[in-house]
Amino acid sequence: MIYGYNPRTGRQAGGELAETTEAEVGAAVRAAGDAGRPWRAMAAAARAGVLDRVADALAANAEELWRTADEETALGETRLRGEVGRAAGQFRLFAEVLRDGGYAGVVVDHADPGATPPRPDVRLMNHPLPGVVGVFAASNFPFAFSVAGGDTASALAAGCPVVVKAHPAHPRTSVLSASVIRSALPDAALLGLVQGLEAGRPLVQHPLVSAVGFTGSIPGGKAIQAMIHERPDPIPFYGELGSVNPVVVLPSALKNDVTALAAGFAGSLTQGVGQFCTNPGLVFVPDDESLRSAIKEAVAGSTGGPMLSGRIIEGYAQGLARLGSLDTLAEGASGTGPWDATPKVFTTALADFAGALPEIAEECFGPSSIVVTYTDPAELPVVLSRLPGSLTATVHAADPAEAQEVAGVLREMAGRLIWNGWPTGVAVTWAMHHGGPWPSSTAPKHTSVGAAAIGRWMAPTAYQNWPQDLLPAELREDNPLGVPRRVDGRQE
Amino acid sequence: MIYGYNPRTGRQAGGELAETTEAEVGAAVRAAGDAGRPWRAMAAAARAGVLDRVADALAANAEELWRTADEETALGETRLRGEVGRAAGQFRLFAEVLRDGGYAGVVVDHADPGATPPRPDVRLMNHPLPGVVGVFAASNFPFAFSVAGGDTASALAAGCPVVVKAHPAHPRTSVLSASVIRSALPDAALLGLVQGLEAGRPLVQHPLVSAVGFTGSIPGGKAIQAMIHERPDPIPFYGELGSVNPVVVLPSALKNDVTALAAGFAGSLTQGVGQFCTNPGLVFVPDDESLRSAIKEAVAGSTGGPMLSGRIIEGYAQGLARLGSLDTLAEGASGTGPWDATPKVFTTALADFAGALPEIAEECFGPSSIVVTYTDPAELPVVLSRLPGSLTATVHAADPAEAQEVAGVLREMAGRLIWNGWPTGVAVTWAMHHGGPWPSSTAPKHTSVGAAAIGRWMAPTAYQNWPQDLLPAELREDNPLGVPRRVDGRQE
Repeated sequence: MIYGYNPRTGRQAGGELAETTEAEVGAAVRAAGDAGRPWRAMAAAARAGVLDRVADALAANAEELWRTADEETALGETRLRGEVGRAAGQFRLFAEVLRDGGYAGVVVDHADPGATPPRPDVRLMNHPLPGVVGVFAASNFPFAFSVAGGDTASALAAGCPVVVKAHPAHPRTSVLSASVIRSALPDAALLGLVQGLEAGRPLVQHPLVSAVGFTGSIPGGKAIQAMIHERPDPIPFYGELGSVNPVVVLPSALKNDVTALAAGFAGSLTQGVGQFCTNPGLVFVPDDESLRSAIKEAVAGSTGGPMLSGRIIEGYAQGLARLGSLDTLAEGASGTGPWDATPKVFTTALADFAGALPEIAEECFGPSSIVVTYTDPAELPVVLSRLPGSLTATVHAADPAEAQEVAGVLREMAGRLIWNGWPTGVAVTWAMHHGGPWPSSTAPKHTSVGAAAIGRWMAPTAYQNWPQDLLPAELREDNPLGVPRRVDGRQE
Repeated sequence: MIYGYNPRTGRQAGGELAETTEAEVGAAVRAAGDAGRPWRAMAAAARAGVLDRVADALAANAEELWRTADEETALGETRLRGEVGRAAGQFRLFAEVLRDGGYAGVVVDHADPGATPPRPDVRLMNHPLPGVVGVFAASNFPFAFSVAGGDTASALAAGCPVVVKAHPAHPRTSVLSASVIRSALPDAALLGLVQGLEAGRPLVQHPLVSAVGFTGSIPGGKAIQAMIHERPDPIPFYGELGSVNPVVVLPSALKNDVTALAAGFAGSLTQGVGQFCTNPGLVFVPDDESLRSAIKEAVAGSTGGPMLSGRIIEGYAQGLARLGSLDTLAEGASGTGPWDATPKVFTTALADFAGALPEIAEECFGPSSIVVTYTDPAELPVVLSRLPGSLTATVHAADPAEAQEVAGVLREMAGRLIWNGWPTGVAVTWAMHHGGPWPSSTAPKHTSVGAAAIGRWMAPTAYQNWPQDLLPAELREDNPLGVPRRVDGRQE
């Protein structure tokens, strides 16, 4: 049996739920597969209307949703109401993406009988992957990266039915989210929900499952990847895993407000009790007493909070113990308790840090970070180039010219570069990229946040000399939907 | 030692070449990695200039290239000169792609401080994957899918250095091609070449290799995929494998010229001695005596030819033996010898074919095909939906309305749909898609032919509040390169 966990009490939250059996997983996938046929045949504009109605349903049920999630996550009303809004906003963004039509990637090449060899008329567009998308929900965003999250929204937008493996940290929020979303879908089977540790394998190995999305830890991602490798067919696996998100404070940044810099760091470190994949886990700072003491003060003034699950509490304690046992690290600053997760900052010098790579740069999920001091910024690039891939990398500087070389190194090891800011907070926009080189993701070409996330669940088809009557509307000569197209090599 | 094979004599072609040792593979990858840094830092327009010069060099050396390849492939002057031109054309297309700039996928979202939460300025574009691209050359196109092929051209265009594992069927053509291409590159190490069966594993498992392209058989692709799965990091594998390329002749097609239809089939079947991944291996035809006899006559009038290697000859013989042993198949027609590969057509009825799935639909590489007769076209969709994924699917009909349902089924199982044509011949254009669902490729989102092939070797980076001075030119506010961009949600 499955039950939720109340972080405020450390006890069971709500009644028990049954684990989904392997047979039930198969039934959910088959039902989703059947529901998917009319769904993907539907015009994009009609699917957009459904997504807007899903957003409306989430907004209309915000009260019950946040209260249920708060019992299972203790993240509080402000954060959780905001997150329901974010989840609804993701459905609305994908409705906009569908109406725009650029997601279809339309390319039209007219025939050229005079070419050598003669060229046929060829028209290209993206279609949803046939079959079912499997999604593994994350613990740390009970709405935005869970049942109602970006993977579900983008897959439904693409035209794919979805079966979500709920995260065990918020089972009742998952059931409620699924029920709210289904109320706006033409067929409830378009969104399947499975629960329990044993449901993952039959889901990713089901023959009808054609792609898998995952948000979670590196070991979790590796385990799913290994199960997918056992399949006879290599389906895409979009795993958004953890990362250390290096932040580099260059000397010129000290000309800015050092107290504000330190406060920004402490805020990013402790937001959501540090339970973000974009948490700033490594900060490189000049060896400057004013900055050091400002950081120490800001972190000492921060507070921890209850963590999402017993497993996360245990993982954070183990992570702190691992970091604490490293000779190269000294304790730099601590926030206040009495919660599960006390913010904790370690310090070391650049040469010592470099000597302890790669172990020292492993993610410790929670409000902890390593502050690495350097004296010569010219020594940074070679050390930074040895860091593992991250979702983000940040530079603080008053002078862009000073950042050129460091930026060049960080560009190749992170999916998003941030200037004079902090990595937590991922805008849901057209240009966002939330992904990065291994091990921050399993597929660095792809994003789990932003408009491009829809592309994960689609593949192109080329139509050669295909009759106008049989072409999808997006490809017809008169472009009745007015979608953006590249025609004979020119973007229109 | 390695030596080429002369298909006309069945004997060794040219002198012996040394196999590349594991240490030499490592050295080639490291040298390519070093050469890659300035290459990917180069402006796209400058890289385009280099690609044009590679095309010029290929064209200038066409004589020596085709003669060398003819000794190792027996494909003849016309085909091989054409293929050198095609290879040069691929480099020119990617030069055009770079100058256009759309490949960068630029998206700009301006800041919106009034949004909840406030939105930062975020700008997105594709960059080349760091590291080195590994390419496995195919046997059947000694230029267009080999050392000078589309994988090399698209990876170099993206900004990635390449190490090619030469195909053992044309080792000297490979060495010559590499030498011609290198003469136009700023650094010869941008194109590494390794030879021999043992070179594959150290290439795909080298830590600096960040993606692999492959064109070849399904078993070959599976073997490479398994080696990649042993890596600690999951790098993308773009395997373009074989397929059966179903062709469906609907009843209305009989209103067209049946003799021309049969001649088109025999031509596509025997082109290049059937050694094409787009060979029409399955043809569904109405139970019509005039068509049957036209096909029989056209195939009987066709001739075989020498095949590319002893391994391919053996594979074709085994494939024919396998098909010949199936009770459900009758011999339908044969071309004439005395070559390695005699064209061979088998026949069966739709119900018998369906009963022998999936084995009966396995690819037999060479000029063989199965003609499946049906009496009721309404029985086609359910049988077609059970076929494996293919690179192409073709419909012959005089009436588009008649094709609607069949087309819907074929759309989900093939990467390219062809109307009243034949699958061999893949135009190198903006809209081309050469890929398809498993097992025709390992990554159905991607193409190995056409402008989009460059995207396989790139991944996006988002720049958040990044200073204009540090942004790539493509992302600067004034768009100095004039690349196509999506700005604040609108394609420009």
